[in-house]
Amino acid sequence: MAKNSKGMKSPRRYWMYGYHPVKAALLNQSRVIHRLVLTQNAANRLARDIGSIDHLNPEIRVTKYFTELFGSDTTHQGFALELLPLEERGLESLDLLNSPGQPIVILDQVTDPQNIGAILRSAEAFYCKAIITTSRNAPGETGALAKTSSGAIERIPIIRVTNLTVAMAKLKEKGFWLIGLDLLGENELETVLQETTDVKIGFVMGAEGKGLRDSVKKKCDYLAHITINNSINSLNVSIATSICLYSAFRIRNTK
Amino acid sequence: MAKNSKGMKSPRRYWMYGYHPVKAALLNQSRVIHRLVLTQNAANRLARDIGSIDHLNPEIRVTKYFTELFGSDTTHQGFALELLPLEERGLESLDLLNSPGQPIVILDQVTDPQNIGAILRSAEAFYCKAIITTSRNAPGETGALAKTSSGAIERIPIIRVTNLTVAMAKLKEKGFWLIGLDLLGENELETVLQETTDVKIGFVMGAEGKGLRDSVKKKCDYLAHITINNSINSLNVSIATSICLYSAFRIRNTK
Repeated sequence: MAKNSKGMKSPRRYWMYGYHPVKAALLNQSRVIHRLVLTQNAANRLARDIGSIDHLNPEIRVTKYFTELFGSDTTHQGFALELLPLEERGLESLDLLNSPGQPIVILDQVTDPQNIGAILRSAEAFYCKAIITTSRNAPGETGALAKTSSGAIERIPIIRVTNLTVAMAKLKEKGFWLIGLDLLGENELETVLQETTDVKIGFVMGAEGKGLRDSVKKKCDYLAHITINNSINSLNVSIATSICLYSAFRIRNTK
Repeated sequence: MAKNSKGMKSPRRYWMYGYHPVKAALLNQSRVIHRLVLTQNAANRLARDIGSIDHLNPEIRVTKYFTELFGSDTTHQGFALELLPLEERGLESLDLLNSPGQPIVILDQVTDPQNIGAILRSAEAFYCKAIITTSRNAPGETGALAKTSSGAIERIPIIRVTNLTVAMAKLKEKGFWLIGLDLLGENELETVLQETTDVKIGFVMGAEGKGLRDSVKKKCDYLAHITINNSINSLNVSIATSICLYSAFRIRNTK
């Protein structure tokens, strides 16, 4: 496992916490690890799970150390890992992913790290190929994002693009049909998915409240809605995305 | 709107924050309100939405006041409301809810307030009748729960019971068929829902990681799974519950 170059203080380092994210990061060969801090119980658990951890030079600390690091409200479970974010990937990396039947997810100004983490977790559950978001107006890797992803951040690629509508045009050239989710979209999600079983699809999701920007809507091939109680104004974006991915997987049954 | 009796300090008061939850609580006639604190912008927005707010005696404060109250990571949007939790309801209150086709959700030791808030929000979106949980081993109302519910906590009843398996037996007597969600459940969710379109149903959801307790599983009429990538071990419980409720609503189309 690669180490950060000695003594070089990188401003991009961050702390990941929790059993699932830390274990998944340690199993990811692409990770640049700086420090691994564990309670004795956590060290025992990790050694049981992944074999000897001595080569990772874990620092064994009591719970108080973690509380000082993260505050008292963080579910660290005795696992803390200081590391660099994964290398950023561009749209060209999509061609390297060999899973033609799998949908992708495009996020338009979704900013809440917990929502993005939850979307990554469901993306893995329902065989989504990659998440596409912008370099700006979208959070980078954080401990909260990694935690809610439950380790999926190591396995589901996040592709960052400069301009979302330009990227959407390129995806259409690559054969993707883009389905924008919009409360007022004229098609029911289920109907659109039944009509698109033999093409590549991407779900385009907007921020809660604001929804999709007009310029993004115009690039969609379909605008689809999930039927909900019309006295409420929206679903949580990670829930809506999960319903899209679950439905696509159920209808297309592609892995 | 009822006020708490003057000067009596109640230990059960808590702070709710954020636009949607605070607005929804102010529109709920059952709420006992103690203090309403707003930024000037928030006060203007609220007055536009619900008419005059002078009778609520709002205190107008600058953002710094909210940061001191909630810390800097809380999305308060300039809305804070100190209030009492809603009166607790028992299982008998279920008979008062007149919506025979709607499913219920039963939570077995689900403890994360954000998950419960997200479940309430999806419950409202997909016409779920009520949430049933235990008095112990489940969080009461908190600001985080109310925030993630996006106001649904005012409209979806939470029923608290002493003993979950006793409550499940009573629900079966009332004609509910109970569908426990379990990764190893022998039936696919979709199949179970197709088989139960003409009876009342309840989804029984366990805590992530632990899943359903054996005693709870035994009380279920079906154990059903949501098909996911078998390299991962679970879905987030609020996502799994939302998929159940969405699927039931789609298949049964009952409001």
